[in-house]
Amino acid sequence: MPAILGQIMKLMFEHIRVVLVETSHSGNIGSAARAMKTMGFSQLYLVSPKLVDEQSIALSAGAEDVVRSAHIVSSFDEAIADCSLVIGTSARLRHLQNTLIEPRRCGEKVATHKGNVAIVFGRERVGLHNDELLKCHYHLTIPANPDYSSLNLAMAVQLICYELRMGLLTKENNVIPFSLIGEINNAENHYATSQEMEYFFTHTEQVYKSLGFIQNQGVMQKLRRLYLRSNVEKNELNILRGMLSSVEKQLNLPNMDS
Amino acid sequence: MPAILGQIMKLMFEHIRVVLVETSHSGNIGSAARAMKTMGFSQLYLVSPKLVDEQSIALSAGAEDVVRSAHIVSSFDEAIADCSLVIGTSARLRHLQNTLIEPRRCGEKVATHKGNVAIVFGRERVGLHNDELLKCHYHLTIPANPDYSSLNLAMAVQLICYELRMGLLTKENNVIPFSLIGEINNAENHYATSQEMEYFFTHTEQVYKSLGFIQNQGVMQKLRRLYLRSNVEKNELNILRGMLSSVEKQLNLPNMDS
Repeated sequence: MPAILGQIMKLMFEHIRVVLVETSHSGNIGSAARAMKTMGFSQLYLVSPKLVDEQSIALSAGAEDVVRSAHIVSSFDEAIADCSLVIGTSARLRHLQNTLIEPRRCGEKVATHKGNVAIVFGRERVGLHNDELLKCHYHLTIPANPDYSSLNLAMAVQLICYELRMGLLTKENNVIPFSLIGEINNAENHYATSQEMEYFFTHTEQVYKSLGFIQNQGVMQKLRRLYLRSNVEKNELNILRGMLSSVEKQLNLPNMDS
Repeated sequence: MPAILGQIMKLMFEHIRVVLVETSHSGNIGSAARAMKTMGFSQLYLVSPKLVDEQSIALSAGAEDVVRSAHIVSSFDEAIADCSLVIGTSARLRHLQNTLIEPRRCGEKVATHKGNVAIVFGRERVGLHNDELLKCHYHLTIPANPDYSSLNLAMAVQLICYELRMGLLTKENNVIPFSLIGEINNAENHYATSQEMEYFFTHTEQVYKSLGFIQNQGVMQKLRRLYLRSNVEKNELNILRGMLSSVEKQLNLPNMDS
């Protein structure tokens, strides 16, 4: 591979992070790091891990560098703040039906996404909480044996990272990625980030509560799902927020934007 | 899934065996069994394993049945005797160049094969010997990170079994798209129709023109693109229209809904 293409590939892989939420077993952090590195990924975010210790290093085998350079953060929100595509792993939950994707589709989606991507894995026993799932654009489910779907954490990381790699490599083969250099550099400016979306949701809730339309949590959950699913662009978000502000102004509500 | 199709799927999975050759670490046998079972496979052949013990059982988690029913044989030849397709895992060796396949292609090949199939994994450190490799029809190589391709045995089993499962399920889906039957039946009632969306767009334009926010066509074009992209559901559209109405009511605009 020419050096420039190698560089581009490296950039593409670095835009993608694996987020592990409240991992209980320190060994799993090491095994997950190893799985990531075999597929070319290095950006590991740990949300309030119970412990990162010698066991993590031991099980990482040759991926000690991934463990040692992991970003340890204290909240889910912090781990995904600058990401414009957040994909959470999940059981096949009924209320997530429309945002469920399988690993292969996930790999394809991520490969064409312009901006930072987080793939989030939940706690070993209970997975992601509902409020965390609601902050994800898509919910990833592995089409495992319905009679025994018990993949351990590192196995799931291995499998997803494999499909991400396949997506990126396929893309590399299909496109001459010179044209992507600019796009990659501009990626951060294209889609609304999680933080910007959260601000919009708070704003929406505030305005429509004032109007008496929102009276329970159900409405905001459905709106979240709708907007996260469509991966809102920055310029679209500007319109949506402009609409909110125009309502506020007419109603003489206090304006959050000011 | 109708019972008869379930039976056919089961048979298809049972035609495929995983062969582990001279495994050194008994725990790896358990982890490999677990990986197999999560992907629906149960036929495990062990060629002269060093040891099968409690560690194998412990690491199999809920896949103890796969370990306990494993066929223990004394030679490679015995393990593959009744197979008409033998695929050996291998590093990317030069002399095997023409028979190398990657996991996805392997999954496709196996899915369409009529007859018993063996997927053979070599020793932890040295893999398969040359005489064993020569007995394989194809040589499977995982497109891992060239700088760090160290997948452990169970990880490799997980990944290959996943692609085998995907191949079989895709084949199944090409015959009858089981997973889609329900979706197709409900599709008409689930998503907002074009007519309903048009009504919503007209309504939106009206309200936000009254508010002075919409002053040209550009805004509506962007909103259209955003909402059409996300395939709005009927119940979501009800919320969006309810929001518009609540704004109208406050502003004493004429209500389109009435």
